[in-house]
Amino acid sequence: KMLQRVLCTVLFMGALPSLAEVSHGHISVVLLGATGDLAKKYLWQGLFQLYMDQVSSGHSFTFHGAALTALEPGQRLMFDVLKKLACPPDESPNRCAVLKDQFLKLSQYHQLKTAENYTVLNREIETLLRQEGLKEAGRIFYFSVPPFAYTEIARHINSSCRPPPGAWLRVVLEKPFGHDLESAQQLAAELTTFFKEEEMYRVDHYLGKQAVAHILPFRDQNRQFLDPIWNRHHVERVEIVLKETVDAKGRTSFYEQYGVIRDVLQNHLTEALMFLTMELPANVSRAEEVLQSKLQAFQSLRGLQKNSAVLGQYQAYASQVQEELQKAQDYISTTPTFAGVLIHSDSLRWEGVPFLLTSGKALDERVGYVRVLFKNRAYCTQRETLRDAEHSQCKAKQIIFYIGHGALNTPAVLVSRNLFRPVMPEGSWREAVGQSDLHIFGQPLSDYYVYSPVKERDAYSVLISNIYHARKDFFITTENLLASWGFWTPLLDGISHRPLRLYPGGVENQHLLDFEMVSGEVAFTLAEPVELLNPNRLMPSEYRTIQSKFRQSPLVSAWSEELISQLASDIEKTASRTVAQSGQFHLALSGGSSPVVLFQRLARHHYAFPWKHTHIWLVDERCVPLTDTESNFFSLHNHLLQNVRVPYFNVHPMPVHLNQRLCVEEDRGTELYAKEIMALVANASFDLVLLGVGTDGHTASLFPRSENGLEGAQTVVLTESPVKPHQRMSLSLPLINKARQVFVLVLGKGKHDITTLLSRVGHEPRKWPISGVSPSSGQLVWYVDYEALLG
Amino acid sequence: KMLQRVLCTVLFMGALPSLAEVSHGHISVVLLGATGDLAKKYLWQGLFQLYMDQVSSGHSFTFHGAALTALEPGQRLMFDVLKKLACPPDESPNRCAVLKDQFLKLSQYHQLKTAENYTVLNREIETLLRQEGLKEAGRIFYFSVPPFAYTEIARHINSSCRPPPGAWLRVVLEKPFGHDLESAQQLAAELTTFFKEEEMYRVDHYLGKQAVAHILPFRDQNRQFLDPIWNRHHVERVEIVLKETVDAKGRTSFYEQYGVIRDVLQNHLTEALMFLTMELPANVSRAEEVLQSKLQAFQSLRGLQKNSAVLGQYQAYASQVQEELQKAQDYISTTPTFAGVLIHSDSLRWEGVPFLLTSGKALDERVGYVRVLFKNRAYCTQRETLRDAEHSQCKAKQIIFYIGHGALNTPAVLVSRNLFRPVMPEGSWREAVGQSDLHIFGQPLSDYYVYSPVKERDAYSVLISNIYHARKDFFITTENLLASWGFWTPLLDGISHRPLRLYPGGVENQHLLDFEMVSGEVAFTLAEPVELLNPNRLMPSEYRTIQSKFRQSPLVSAWSEELISQLASDIEKTASRTVAQSGQFHLALSGGSSPVVLFQRLARHHYAFPWKHTHIWLVDERCVPLTDTESNFFSLHNHLLQNVRVPYFNVHPMPVHLNQRLCVEEDRGTELYAKEIMALVANASFDLVLLGVGTDGHTASLFPRSENGLEGAQTVVLTESPVKPHQRMSLSLPLINKARQVFVLVLGKGKHDITTLLSRVGHEPRKWPISGVSPSSGQLVWYVDYEALLG
Repeated sequence: KMLQRVLCTVLFMGALPSLAEVSHGHISVVLLGATGDLAKKYLWQGLFQLYMDQVSSGHSFTFHGAALTALEPGQRLMFDVLKKLACPPDESPNRCAVLKDQFLKLSQYHQLKTAENYTVLNREIETLLRQEGLKEAGRIFYFSVPPFAYTEIARHINSSCRPPPGAWLRVVLEKPFGHDLESAQQLAAELTTFFKEEEMYRVDHYLGKQAVAHILPFRDQNRQFLDPIWNRHHVERVEIVLKETVDAKGRTSFYEQYGVIRDVLQNHLTEALMFLTMELPANVSRAEEVLQSKLQAFQSLRGLQKNSAVLGQYQAYASQVQEELQKAQDYISTTPTFAGVLIHSDSLRWEGVPFLLTSGKALDERVGYVRVLFKNRAYCTQRETLRDAEHSQCKAKQIIFYIGHGALNTPAVLVSRNLFRPVMPEGSWREAVGQSDLHIFGQPLSDYYVYSPVKERDAYSVLISNIYHARKDFFITTENLLASWGFWTPLLDGISHRPLRLYPGGVENQHLLDFEMVSGEVAFTLAEPVELLNPNRLMPSEYRTIQSKFRQSPLVSAWSEELISQLASDIEKTASRTVAQSGQFHLALSGGSSPVVLFQRLARHHYAFPWKHTHIWLVDERCVPLTDTESNFFSLHNHLLQNVRVPYFNVHPMPVHLNQRLCVEEDRGTELYAKEIMALVANASFDLVLLGVGTDGHTASLFPRSENGLEGAQTVVLTESPVKPHQRMSLSLPLINKARQVFVLVLGKGKHDITTLLSRVGHEPRKWPISGVSPSSGQLVWYVDYEALLG
Repeated sequence: KMLQRVLCTVLFMGALPSLAEVSHGHISVVLLGATGDLAKKYLWQGLFQLYMDQVSSGHSFTFHGAALTALEPGQRLMFDVLKKLACPPDESPNRCAVLKDQFLKLSQYHQLKTAENYTVLNREIETLLRQEGLKEAGRIFYFSVPPFAYTEIARHINSSCRPPPGAWLRVVLEKPFGHDLESAQQLAAELTTFFKEEEMYRVDHYLGKQAVAHILPFRDQNRQFLDPIWNRHHVERVEIVLKETVDAKGRTSFYEQYGVIRDVLQNHLTEALMFLTMELPANVSRAEEVLQSKLQAFQSLRGLQKNSAVLGQYQAYASQVQEELQKAQDYISTTPTFAGVLIHSDSLRWEGVPFLLTSGKALDERVGYVRVLFKNRAYCTQRETLRDAEHSQCKAKQIIFYIGHGALNTPAVLVSRNLFRPVMPEGSWREAVGQSDLHIFGQPLSDYYVYSPVKERDAYSVLISNIYHARKDFFITTENLLASWGFWTPLLDGISHRPLRLYPGGVENQHLLDFEMVSGEVAFTLAEPVELLNPNRLMPSEYRTIQSKFRQSPLVSAWSEELISQLASDIEKTASRTVAQSGQFHLALSGGSSPVVLFQRLARHHYAFPWKHTHIWLVDERCVPLTDTESNFFSLHNHLLQNVRVPYFNVHPMPVHLNQRLCVEEDRGTELYAKEIMALVANASFDLVLLGVGTDGHTASLFPRSENGLEGAQTVVLTESPVKPHQRMSLSLPLINKARQVFVLVLGKGKHDITTLLSRVGHEPRKWPISGVSPSSGQLVWYVDYEALLG
């Protein structure tokens, strides 16, 4: 009857729907947690906005608040909230007052605690609809409750509150959706037993932020301008940032379990990232296509590593946690409250472009933005003071989706005037008239085209409207959620006990949280400031390279990093000298893990290395295809060859894979390699051979008591390794000993025992093949790190 | 006697040398062209400075001015100049006055016109030395004369004026040193018949500019800071710029023959470029090492192409030329007065870093600088207004060698404070106290460490001192000169008739001369403004690619350059599409000369090409070693593979050289290649095969009436070519016809007859193998240029 009364009122007002339109059916919205914080602050207002927007859509509505509280106090609490609902500034006060009155009448409170309560609720809805003679269109259940309550509520809804066939069910879920891949999978699996994928609407309220929600439409509507430049050739970097001034005080019980990555980066910032990087579907308003494209963008992300992130914690956090969670005075929290993460996409479009995601609490300002900075490819002949923003290509070119707060204090889309004048949807965005003295990202505001929303809408209003319109692309699908957790979980695991940079908070942070990209990783720009360090933490000591003797040959020793630098630089010197003398340099390299760091160092730090004149040979190889990750050559290729310019002809992988067969005697791969060496290397005497040592004293792929390769005339041999893959190809000891120089690299504690042993034993190659390395007319140098040498 | 008198005066002054020191010997300086402009303006002053600096060095001096003018008027003219010599501000006026008096006494004028004159000069020097009892240390002949006079003077000096054994000869030459490689070689060859390399000092006065001369010492003294950042990973771009406000009025007779590239870029700016890019020798004060390093840097430069430069001419130039050179009203000059050139070095250190050389007359300001801009790799968490120049890594990082004029109006070295505090030689450079309101390259001057010379020295003073000190590294050796002309000549040839952008001059130029880098080329940012065009000048016709049919298949036709662009871009499109579908792209390429331009275009203009996922196969190969210049693979490697990043495993040369033998049946190379194709290419169906056509109708290495490969099951075959090398390996016609796409490229007049023939004949592979190309389920496209199509 109440509903009928409201409908009469509706009919009484001119602009409102006819009964025919009302026949679209009835929608029941159930807000679970109706008296909670989120409901008070955003959700009821969002539902009221939905009502105002859709009152003439042909649907009728009822709104059901629900909570654990008993009927009467609950009712009172809820109506206190409803009475305070605000009229938006863009609505006529009269109309709003009438509608608010109706909204209150259409709303009622329910206690939902027991299974019985749910049955009753269902019966009430059915009864009401029957009485009013209304067809049911669908039901929305909005879960504004803690995640531990999800399963129980879901079970009740599924068993008691499903609408009749022909009407839809939409359940709206609020984060957190797990705290890593495993827990998210578990939660998703549980929910899947109650709801179908298309029934679930997982909220990430960032997708309701107007600037974020406009990224895809912007890309779509400005295709003509963006098509040529929205790629790695033109984009210099992308920053996705949410800075907060508040800290976690009062919320540490939640925050301590999550931290900034789970709270902000894994969801909000990642979603923005996806909107930027995904390939634009032909039709951006088709949710299915958008979701598919987004999922593909996830698959292109390069895996994160420990050093993909810098992490911090504001100094007061520890004591807040101790106090709020009753922890001991010496309790140390490893929860980051600041994170900067460098992300790369390996898609052809974005390869090499850095995406920097940053968020933190207790920072100097509150602001959120997505900033795309384009490369400057111009030279401007006219002097700076004569350049104008509209035409000079030397001014910074940027596109910024300004999410809110900060200097602008409004959502906005900014496009540098020297890029293009963007196409914006006229009804919803309008060109802003600038405060001309403002500077945004290094440029005066007047250097940009600036657009802001015609109506500023709260994210929840936007999202509630999208639930009503079944725009699933504004929500997080299960696949999307798991893809995101799959991406973030390895980093979260890798950093769980990493020391955090402490920062004082606010403007005091100064440059403490600035960070830099170096070779695909990030690091804080300033060295760890001592005064902020836990005084018990050890400072890294400075060690120098020791030079002395080992087994009668020169020994170079240092901590592994310095040792590798020294070795790389010695190899370069040898190479340059040899090329100067003979025009070419024949370098034979070993496999295994130790040389990987060396390869990387050579690739990244030795620009003068005469690669063009260097021949690369293998000391030994595993009998696997060259493209197998176990192949020595594969590792050499990945870490060195693909980064330098060795001519194709100068690369000599071992022929372990001939005629599609691995190390088959009849294929005579060893003879082939021996012939190749004879043909190219003068006297088969390599200029430099790099060896390693195994814990059993093996070197190259010459193992203790090997039948081949320790002596005799054969220069390249097939051998057997005690560990898999067993079959190997190796240079022989006699060939190695013909080299003009042999460097042996020994790294790590694991090699301490064999190092000690080797320092004592003589020439016993059958027991310890490495002891047989003794160049007949060349030089042997040992590179042994402190850990191997000193244990 | 005069000399003795002067020496007495010298001895009379306290701080001056003892006789013992004088025994270092006597130096005679002969200035040819002693009354010319350059001599008046710089050279005499430089010689006077040399005298002031070296009067106590232990050498005695005489200065001989020489010209064509008769003795008496010449003498008068010359002494008018000498009397006006200035005392430098850093010299005590008393000492300077005394020294100037001596200098005048040590100077005399000679008419040098005939062979006899030279003999007389030589005799006078000898007589003087004998009379004074002085040992001869050496002679300097400074050629301040037009280049046409060089040979004659050189002949006279060589035959009549050489000093006795034990004393040195230094001849100083002023540019121009030729106007292209050929003329420079010719001039160099002539001079070489008269002088030894070590006797010649070719002046580029830029090498005497204090900021330019300090580039190498700066790099040397700041190795610790620069070593990690002086490379492509850290440098964003380098600008080398000389802007002038003056125009060529009054000098067009010279300028019209040279233009801005020969006048400024080929010499001054290129030398600065070399100082920046060369590998730093261990000892920068050893001229030999520096020169060697510089020569290597030349070898790393990537060749320039027509579109490596943008060119302009100020509007008044044409009428100035018409007037000064008495040309007709409709005379059109193609001499550029403005040039912006993009240069790349292919060294590992600099690969990919753009070096922009810019110079022009009638611009908005007079300024010269070398600017190294570093990449910004930082994210600064604190908001902009809170960043400070010293510590924020988000401010621009730059090192600037400020040559002179411009806003600073002094030579200077500037280093951004967030980079490092540079080490500067205390005696010669001092920290400048800033005019704090000045902005240089987007930053307030206070953001930099600024150093300027303690004594500002004119370039010629610096150079004359370096001639005296035999610092050959401050001069242009013959090798250096020819390397530079070798680098610039192809561009100069390529642009000799290119239309120039006209510009009004001065601040009016606005953004007309701004230019941008696009895919390794440069272009003006603004489209050609119609109103500035000479209405009589012909617009380059716009040809468009013709699309039609040839032999029932699609035909693309255009002039060869456009055709190649189109083909390259079609290949890239196919590649990207295929990789997106199947993850890899199998491309089979033909040898021969036509594809070379295509390979180069792919390497330099198609950065988005998915090389990482591309497999490269050969369509055919000559039976020569892969490193033979005749090898198809060798050419493919040189022009394409070494410039892109195809993984080693994805490169599939034909195995024509197994067991050190060429195409021997028993080695079964064809089977091996067939197996490799079967193993990697799905259905042995290449994604794209690129073919050519011979004048005899052959394609791949399938020749008319070939026994193998035109039909049958064999996929890879050995064939015989009618021309050398006869033995070939080739994909068979049936295999080619399995491809998903086949592109046939036909270029040049020489192919017109076969093209015409092919347009008429049917399927007759035994007569014309190309006519048998007809993919069974793939697509065939013909790319035929106008010359081949239309003759």
